[in-house]
Amino acid sequence: MHPERLKNLLQSVACGEIAPEKALDSLKHLTVEDIGYAHIDHHRSLRKGFPEVIYGENKTSVQIIGIMEKMMSRENIVLVTRIDAAKAKLVMDAIADARYYNDARMLVWAGGEILVTGKGTILVISAGTSDIPVAREAFLTARAMGNNVKSIFDVGVAGIHRLFAYKDEIESAAVLIVVAGMEGALPSVVAGLVDKPVIGVPTSVGYGASFGGLTALFSMLNSCSSNVAVVNIDNGFGAGYMASMINRL
Amino acid sequence: MHPERLKNLLQSVACGEIAPEKALDSLKHLTVEDIGYAHIDHHRSLRKGFPEVIYGENKTSVQIIGIMEKMMSRENIVLVTRIDAAKAKLVMDAIADARYYNDARMLVWAGGEILVTGKGTILVISAGTSDIPVAREAFLTARAMGNNVKSIFDVGVAGIHRLFAYKDEIESAAVLIVVAGMEGALPSVVAGLVDKPVIGVPTSVGYGASFGGLTALFSMLNSCSSNVAVVNIDNGFGAGYMASMINRL
Amino acid sequence: MHPERLKNLLQSVACGEIAPEKALDSLKHLTVEDIGYAHIDHHRSLRKGFPEVIYGENKTSVQIIGIMEKMMSRENIVLVTRIDAAKAKLVMDAIADARYYNDARMLVWAGGEILVTGKGTILVISAGTSDIPVAREAFLTARAMGNNVKSIFDVGVAGIHRLFAYKDEIESAAVLIVVAGMEGALPSVVAGLVDKPVIGVPTSVGYGASFGGLTALFSMLNSCSSNVAVVNIDNGFGAGYMASMINRL
Amino acid sequence: MHPERLKNLLQSVACGEIAPEKALDSLKHLTVEDIGYAHIDHHRSLRKGFPEVIYGENKTSVQIIGIMEKMMSRENIVLVTRIDAAKAKLVMDAIADARYYNDARMLVWAGGEILVTGKGTILVISAGTSDIPVAREAFLTARAMGNNVKSIFDVGVAGIHRLFAYKDEIESAAVLIVVAGMEGALPSVVAGLVDKPVIGVPTSVGYGASFGGLTALFSMLNSCSSNVAVVNIDNGFGAGYMASMINRL
Amino acid sequence: MHPERLKNLLQSVACGEIAPEKALDSLKHLTVEDIGYAHIDHHRSLRKGFPEVIYGENKTSVQIIGIMEKMMSRENIVLVTRIDAAKAKLVMDAIADARYYNDARMLVWAGGEILVTGKGTILVISAGTSDIPVAREAFLTARAMGNNVKSIFDVGVAGIHRLFAYKDEIESAAVLIVVAGMEGALPSVVAGLVDKPVIGVPTSVGYGASFGGLTALFSMLNSCSSNVAVVNIDNGFGAGYMASMINRL
Amino acid sequence: MHPERLKNLLQSVACGEIAPEKALDSLKHLTVEDIGYAHIDHHRSLRKGFPEVIYGENKTSVQIIGIMEKMMSRENIVLVTRIDAAKAKLVMDAIADARYYNDARMLVWAGGEILVTGKGTILVISAGTSDIPVAREAFLTARAMGNNVKSIFDVGVAGIHRLFAYKDEIESAAVLIVVAGMEGALPSVVAGLVDKPVIGVPTSVGYGASFGGLTALFSMLNSCSSNVAVVNIDNGFGAGYMASMINRL
Amino acid sequence: MHPERLKNLLQSVACGEIAPEKALDSLKHLTVEDIGYAHIDHHRSLRKGFPEVIYGENKTSVQIIGIMEKMMSRENIVLVTRIDAAKAKLVMDAIADARYYNDARMLVWAGGEILVTGKGTILVISAGTSDIPVAREAFLTARAMGNNVKSIFDVGVAGIHRLFAYKDEIESAAVLIVVAGMEGALPSVVAGLVDKPVIGVPTSVGYGASFGGLTALFSMLNSCSSNVAVVNIDNGFGAGYMASMINRL
Amino acid sequence: MHPERLKNLLQSVACGEIAPEKALDSLKHLTVEDIGYAHIDHHRSLRKGFPEVIYGENKTSVQIIGIMEKMMSRENIVLVTRIDAAKAKLVMDAIADARYYNDARMLVWAGGEILVTGKGTILVISAGTSDIPVAREAFLTARAMGNNVKSIFDVGVAGIHRLFAYKDEIESAAVLIVVAGMEGALPSVVAGLVDKPVIGVPTSVGYGASFGGLTALFSMLNSCSSNVAVVNIDNGFGAGYMASMINRL
Repeated sequence: MHPERLKNLLQSVACGEIAPEKALDSLKHLTVEDIGYAHIDHHRSLRKGFPEVIYGENKTSVQIIGIMEKMMSRENIVLVTRIDAAKAKLVMDAIADARYYNDARMLVWAGGEILVTGKGTILVISAGTSDIPVAREAFLTARAMGNNVKSIFDVGVAGIHRLFAYKDEIESAAVLIVVAGMEGALPSVVAGLVDKPVIGVPTSVGYGASFGGLTALFSMLNSCSSNVAVVNIDNGFGAGYMASMINRL
Repeated sequence: MHPERLKNLLQSVACGEIAPEKALDSLKHLTVEDIGYAHIDHHRSLRKGFPEVIYGENKTSVQIIGIMEKMMSRENIVLVTRIDAAKAKLVMDAIADARYYNDARMLVWAGGEILVTGKGTILVISAGTSDIPVAREAFLTARAMGNNVKSIFDVGVAGIHRLFAYKDEIESAAVLIVVAGMEGALPSVVAGLVDKPVIGVPTSVGYGASFGGLTALFSMLNSCSSNVAVVNIDNGFGAGYMASMINRL
Repeated sequence: MHPERLKNLLQSVACGEIAPEKALDSLKHLTVEDIGYAHIDHHRSLRKGFPEVIYGENKTSVQIIGIMEKMMSRENIVLVTRIDAAKAKLVMDAIADARYYNDARMLVWAGGEILVTGKGTILVISAGTSDIPVAREAFLTARAMGNNVKSIFDVGVAGIHRLFAYKDEIESAAVLIVVAGMEGALPSVVAGLVDKPVIGVPTSVGYGASFGGLTALFSMLNSCSSNVAVVNIDNGFGAGYMASMINRL
Repeated sequence: MHPERLKNLLQSVACGEIAPEKALDSLKHLTVEDIGYAHIDHHRSLRKGFPEVIYGENKTSVQIIGIMEKMMSRENIVLVTRIDAAKAKLVMDAIADARYYNDARMLVWAGGEILVTGKGTILVISAGTSDIPVAREAFLTARAMGNNVKSIFDVGVAGIHRLFAYKDEIESAAVLIVVAGMEGALPSVVAGLVDKPVIGVPTSVGYGASFGGLTALFSMLNSCSSNVAVVNIDNGFGAGYMASMINRL
Repeated sequence: MHPERLKNLLQSVACGEIAPEKALDSLKHLTVEDIGYAHIDHHRSLRKGFPEVIYGENKTSVQIIGIMEKMMSRENIVLVTRIDAAKAKLVMDAIADARYYNDARMLVWAGGEILVTGKGTILVISAGTSDIPVAREAFLTARAMGNNVKSIFDVGVAGIHRLFAYKDEIESAAVLIVVAGMEGALPSVVAGLVDKPVIGVPTSVGYGASFGGLTALFSMLNSCSSNVAVVNIDNGFGAGYMASMINRL
Repeated sequence: MHPERLKNLLQSVACGEIAPEKALDSLKHLTVEDIGYAHIDHHRSLRKGFPEVIYGENKTSVQIIGIMEKMMSRENIVLVTRIDAAKAKLVMDAIADARYYNDARMLVWAGGEILVTGKGTILVISAGTSDIPVAREAFLTARAMGNNVKSIFDVGVAGIHRLFAYKDEIESAAVLIVVAGMEGALPSVVAGLVDKPVIGVPTSVGYGASFGGLTALFSMLNSCSSNVAVVNIDNGFGAGYMASMINRL
Repeated sequence: MHPERLKNLLQSVACGEIAPEKALDSLKHLTVEDIGYAHIDHHRSLRKGFPEVIYGENKTSVQIIGIMEKMMSRENIVLVTRIDAAKAKLVMDAIADARYYNDARMLVWAGGEILVTGKGTILVISAGTSDIPVAREAFLTARAMGNNVKSIFDVGVAGIHRLFAYKDEIESAAVLIVVAGMEGALPSVVAGLVDKPVIGVPTSVGYGASFGGLTALFSMLNSCSSNVAVVNIDNGFGAGYMASMINRL
Repeated sequence: MHPERLKNLLQSVACGEIAPEKALDSLKHLTVEDIGYAHIDHHRSLRKGFPEVIYGENKTSVQIIGIMEKMMSRENIVLVTRIDAAKAKLVMDAIADARYYNDARMLVWAGGEILVTGKGTILVISAGTSDIPVAREAFLTARAMGNNVKSIFDVGVAGIHRLFAYKDEIESAAVLIVVAGMEGALPSVVAGLVDKPVIGVPTSVGYGASFGGLTALFSMLNSCSSNVAVVNIDNGFGAGYMASMINRL
């Protein structure tokens, strides 16, 4: 449950606007709500500052709608990741004000304007054009979580002067997300230039010995620059989430 | 070169204490110093806020001493990681005021007191007793980089109430480093409790299908908690470094 | 051949209701019946307490019907696993009283009511909503084999209080089946709470470094709780079968 | 803490033999005792019916002795696994009545006679002579946990009549532990003969494409007999523990 | 070129039936014929006793027809492996007397009756019903190469008495081909019963930790019976070919 | 930017044909041009002697057309690799004079005749008919980069006399590209015959233990002939590019 | 038990030389003899034509001597494989007439002259000098099993004319064993020259991407020559055994 | 045999200095010389321009001396790679004028001065200090093969300005060898700067997810710069050899 909403509810009880019995009703699922196929963790926004995010891949549109409706009554924002266009369409038929981002395969519902609470700027860099979908997932997640986010795409190491052209943007970011497939070398190079935390996101772009992103992943884990930590292959969402946690400190 | 040292040098020149020619001499290797087997990156502390760290594994004691001596004239702190006791003894014969931490296989030379510049507390948690060496490497690195650091050891998921006993310490940390071998489940559980960034460090503790830490690594990359990013197996140093970068923001 | 049926047959012979020659006919395939593309092991229900189960994946509907018809004349229950909806429909056109469970991709034919012969309760727990199909396969198998079975879905470690809400159900189960994909941490946590055998079932839910379930599998094999044994990825059937064997002791 | 010991303590308080203050002292570490390098989980024998077992591999003899001494004051039995002869000797110098089993690399301390509480017989079968150490670890664990245990060694599938010679022992066991390296085929064959749970233990015996036990592990996970669940490579201890849990039901 | 055909040609020249110039024409491609996308190795039947076999997977029907037509003028038999039904239909439209075996995905053209030249009987055994396609490929290859071949299907180790029922067939075979997926245990068991060479063929039948046949492959390579050699996963053709080479000695 | 074009531009400025302001306009994107989804590296043909090549796999036809149009105004040749026929058709609807090579999945646009600047002949050899698409990609790339290129297809090691028939072509080549799938043995054999550099290209042709080309890749990396270096699986383009670099020396 | 010995015993009984009771004594362990750490399969020489072979790797010298002594009373030949020089010395102290072959790490005891019963010649070929130990193990095994064996060493594909110099030996062999590490290409080339079965033996010779022999193994499994079957890495013994089985037909 | 030596011999025959019979004697092993454990390929220097190189790893010092002595009578230079100091000492006791390079584990014997025949300069770059041994092996090989060779060590991507300081050396090299462990990113960056062939050499430097050099290897194979080809892990020799072949064109 969004902390702001919870505070409002308690104030309404305090000033007699809402009867305690009615408030209780709304709070009884505060921790967990069991809807058969899911235990929705309503306590998460209190505990972690952001509500549960729905992983869309193996869920039906009916399941997604069911979970979203329960969450929308308590939260200000609901994200669905890894949802394809067809499934998203079915969801939007039921929840009209949700918005689908085709390039990032993400669905966002916001109960109002998202306030910027992150302190610095999060910069998302992609090595190639093909890495853009993952970079966009990171971008949208970080923005939905209340951050200023910027992005630079297609500045990989084969023509490293392209990267150096953005020296100012790179040095002024508070947290950097660097997305790369194939040999995954870009996070090392970027991290060597700054004194800020860098989150490496390997992508499955490539063929043959790229092993669906494993080479990029292992490459980043072996970065000779020490200010790099890594998330799962194609996990733009996780990178945006982790960057937000850092940017709130 | 340590920024403080550089500032002092320039002030001495400004007030005529040091002749510009002499200052020049000291600055001509500011960027890179080539000593044959190494190109020491003296610019790193200016650029990244912390000097190069010496990876001890494949270097001889003579090489390590050579690099340390060049760095000690310019930096306030020098770290050597992955150095065994025998090699460390040879180094300390030459550099008497270096200190060796046997449990973390680390050598630290400090030119003076280390000031705490990190904002919050970094908490290092280990799943088992066998994970302590890696946890200690993270601990010592973060402390050498100017942070308040605390640690809790042996609170893995087989008896999860052991972890919950430290709820306050966990919730009050600014950044958490969670070290675990075998199934590597602890970072997920810890990250599920807090709204702070968690750095997972897989260790090579285990046998059979632990694959020298790969299972713990992959487990952490698949964490169902999103505020987890991961460093290489047994890379306590990298976790401490990354946590410091975050804690400085 | 179902022991009960065999006993009836022998009693009928004993009291003269059936001529020995006729009984012989029915018994001559007692051990193995060769139908060209399969050697049906009719002896299995005598030897193992449950008849052969048909693995539907690489068989045609004609082959499945052929094997089922031979078995239905001798057994009280016939299971087909890993059979998709289209193939199941063709089978049910021929065998009307078979029932298809879409969520578990399983087909069940029962010659009568299934008696509960298992002693305690088998509890099936899934970490996520996406793991439900595998959990259901385990559930249906255990129930078909004569057990009381209960289930709790979507209580993974990212919000561990969801699990603790079911402390009583967990502690009162005789055997536990814990189904999880991604990092596969749930069986360790559950096994740490009980003094009962836990069967871990890794699922292929996840992406990137989940390797189609391998990470969850290896994670469970490295469980720091010792009362965990593991079956193949997505093998809900095997878990239900193994749990039944244990629950009969 | 051993339930029997706890009951005695409480009775002594009840009948005035021990002052409540003194009892409190002994109970204050009931849940967890922090000795710096370890959090001993004294609650485990209450919760799981058997105390924590010490994994000896990455611990010093001093650490092992420290943990054992804390446990011996509260438990009736303490096991140390994966401890080599040299380290075991150092431990026995401090704890004279501990006993070392060289073939299984295990150290056992018992505060008194071990009562048989398991209901049936646990049978440990090894495929080859080289698999005996792992089989012995399973045997000793199951016996220490209060079971009747029998063993048959070197009856692998290359001469399958050797196995059939033990048909009676196999059919009369309540739980079977089958230990095999190389192609790991024995658990499938044994499980095909019985209606009891079989725990497969792959061993690292073999060379080349045996991959240190991985081939045996995967082979067992793919068993065409369904009453097989598997533990980690060379994990005789885990198999003995799991079998005990089953045999207590 | 088939040796018989070559002998006839030379005899015709010897007795003046064919002019040397014309014979030369027919012999000039004796070794290799370059048709652009393929170098047909016409020398192979002289050198190896059997003509080249066409691997159908990555070839177009036009390429297959082209190669077949060149070969049919010189050989008595032409095999195409791994050709799907659609592509086979196109080929048969051009080459009417070719015959397609759907279960083995094989196309066979024979210029006349195939004489049995192999000395003993080749026995093909499959572990499961799902392994039949691969077993059939081995069967058809061995038969096309002039052998007496028999087969037994679905006699895997989960019910090992099914296998023993065929003791006579097994003991009287000269060469055995044993086809198995999943844990791939059957070749070890069969080889333990006989003093004849056994060719193990792993299949890709299975899921999860069967890794598309790798587990069966590695299992067979680790066979504790020494009279087993192995071919590639699903390579029924290679097994039939190798068995024929052995059976001709 | 093509060096010739740049020289012409500068000469036109020198002789007053083009006003400096206008020239400036054309040069301002000399290094990098940002079109949102791509940073086109126009400096590459000056720096590396050949313009950027467009990797078609994860790009839309709109993106490809956009990049091509920017490049065509500055370069003499533009290549698109890994583009399927459908996408190529859409591109050719916009850029009429581009030519698609179906067998190599490559699109080539040339602003004029391609001059031969490579010194010797590049010879492309394929082991099988199925390897031709990759061999053709290497062939077309090397030709587009200004080389004399020859090719020999289907001369693998199963009939090694086919290879020896081309001894003269092999010995007279300046650089050799050897393309092979399955066991990938051909580069070793070819490299053993010549004193020239050999570029091995593993292909994904094969099944089972060919692992999509990994076996061929590792085989080539282990070549017992030392004049072999290797590119990624199916990377005909890279082999052609590398050979061109060598052939220009 | 050696068939010859068994026949002699039965004849002695028949003609009254040995009392039936005494004969019985000698036959009662005919099938299996249990000596605690091993079940010796005395039936094997009757069933498979050659007695059990002792795998020396994980056995103590005492265990090896114990098993040998039991076997020597019944068999004409006893082999121990993978036994190092130190352990072999201890065995020969007890069994004086055993002979150790240092290059193949093999110990052979023969009760008399070994008769040649194999029909053709077995030819063992090694690719390199480093592969000789494995080749020698194959050679000695095949010779001990009663075959004419020849060998050619160090004729790998880097200088393929070395191989062709032995064309006659290669073409006149009945069975060929080809031993190769690194890229493992030799079996394909040899098999392409003959119409006989070829057994490929990959060795662990190599480094880096040779993966301890895996590359050679997979290479051989993908052989484009079809008359190749493969045994485990470094398994010279298995190759010699399999070749003997073939050569007896 | 060195071409120069062969020419001299033939001239001596031509002018009557050496009798044809004696010359014949020296030429009869021109192609291959069989010394039991090796077939020395004396033809190699004629065919490939450089004699066989002795791989020292699995050979005894006696074998190495034997092969060297045979080669020294015919060649001007003999290299032994992967030979440790102890073995090298034994060889130098027999062959006094051989020279051992401890850092590269290489032994070189030269019959006279080595002439520079390579056309341009070969530049060897290493990413770290720990990569120097492999870089030195490449350096020494290329120099022994008659090339001008230069080297730059420890200029990895963590401080990329170190690399740019050597822009002139990099741009003026004809062939570049780039040696890197860990994430293996340096070859991509270097190749992006030049229009020359780059040979990537992955090293086994690193830990955890560096997999003994596999990550660096795969990273280089996925290089987004196309003028990179790769040799085996730690194969400095192969890189030097390949570079020499290129530099001779």
